Amino acid sequence: MSFAASVLTLYPEMFPGALGLSLAGRALEAGTWSLDAIQIRDFAADKHRTVDDTPAGGGAGMVMRADVLAKAIDHASPEGDLRPRLLMSPRGKPLTQARVRELAAGPGAVILCGRFEGVDQRVIDARGLEEVSIGDFILSGGEPAALVLLDAVVRLLPGVMGNAVSGDEESFENGLLEHPHYTRPQEFEGREIPEVLISGNHKKIAAWRRAQSETLTKERRPDLFGDQPLLK
Amino acid sequence: MSFAASVLTLYPEMFPGALGLSLAGRALEAGTWSLDAIQIRDFAADKHRTVDDTPAGGGAGMVMRADVLAKAIDHASPEGDLRPRLLMSPRGKPLTQARVRELAAGPGAVILCGRFEGVDQRVIDARGLEEVSIGDFILSGGEPAALVLLDAVVRLLPGVMGNAVSGDEESFENGLLEHPHYTRPQEFEGREIPEVLISGNHKKIAAWRRAQSETLTKERRPDLFGDQPLLK
Repeated sequence: MSFAASVLTLYPEMFPGALGLSLAGRALEAGTWSLDAIQIRDFAADKHRTVDDTPAGGGAGMVMRADVLAKAIDHASPEGDLRPRLLMSPRGKPLTQARVRELAAGPGAVILCGRFEGVDQRVIDARGLEEVSIGDFILSGGEPAALVLLDAVVRLLPGVMGNAVSGDEESFENGLLEHPHYTRPQEFEGREIPEVLISGNHKKIAAWRRAQSETLTKERRPDLFGDQPLLK
Repeated sequence: MSFAASVLTLYPEMFPGALGLSLAGRALEAGTWSLDAIQIRDFAADKHRTVDDTPAGGGAGMVMRADVLAKAIDHASPEGDLRPRLLMSPRGKPLTQARVRELAAGPGAVILCGRFEGVDQRVIDARGLEEVSIGDFILSGGEPAALVLLDAVVRLLPGVMGNAVSGDEESFENGLLEHPHYTRPQEFEGREIPEVLISGNHKKIAAWRRAQSETLTKERRPDLFGDQPLLK
């Protein structure tokens, strides 16, 4: 069974975008996952295809209407659809690799891309939307965030990555940032590959890499380091 | 002077992608910013256009070569180029709205998109690359992250957003998550717009929104809330 993504957006032409190329694009062609980009405007009730209105209580910008979004969601995700319904939003829970893994193990995702000032709270409540944030910054809309989320998920689907080992050794999979990498040439602008890495001593190499990961994580992300009970 | 983005990538056809549409796309056409997507393979030295090699010390995957990347960077960003050189990487410093603002106020950015296991550490050191992460998850490459970073930056460039006020009232700009939004219709599936918002009392509305923002931030992001000395 393949992973089914339905994206609700005012810009369906943004999809598949980067996801139509490289690993994700080959997997899309192979049917490992599917992507349905749905135009929210098609669910507007008036001839101008209006999807937004001014915020109740005043203020700048426009708010996406609950009734229009509800129709679009109900079309994409009828009763009985087991896929989680996500709303890309800077107010959401920060996306983690653990949540990415969960999503990749499931049947797919329905992803609503917000635009303007935001989405009427009542459709979030009424349709049980899970607000997901990819970071503490503001985008023009949810679409670039949806592309990122899907990219992270798709690479974990069975058969997508050429080398299955690769996925397990990376940043966050063990709670640490990745150690530095080196490859040929042996010398680059007077800089050598660290000697331990060409020693052939696998135990020493593993210890060096672990120490480098720990140092880097402590320096750059003490917040992550504290989560590792084994390292305290 | 417009904001000049140079993106170094193995997939130049991923750009402008979503950035060619909507706000960012119109600003690109208007010359408010420019985007140059550069194929890293064009700087390989052999006829197979090799850009990577096996990791020194062993292990899964491939590492991008320092010498090839250095040539590509030097082409995109010759001496005297004042633009910061960014490397999209999950090992990087997490991107914040403050950094986005800084970048938007500057001359542009040179953005290297990593692929495979990573990039030879020596080119990061030798070319002073600033590692930037958009979140604690793993992507197939730096490209989707670069699209997100540029989207966040471009919307802040002068003239890009229709309503200039809009940018200042959003999540993170005041260190809090945004309050809930509502718009017409007054009733949606039996759910009413909160009465305070239709009271016309602007002082009460502002107080309600502030309280909602604080509650939401405390619940979802106590990490952000702690940063607000005024609220302690």
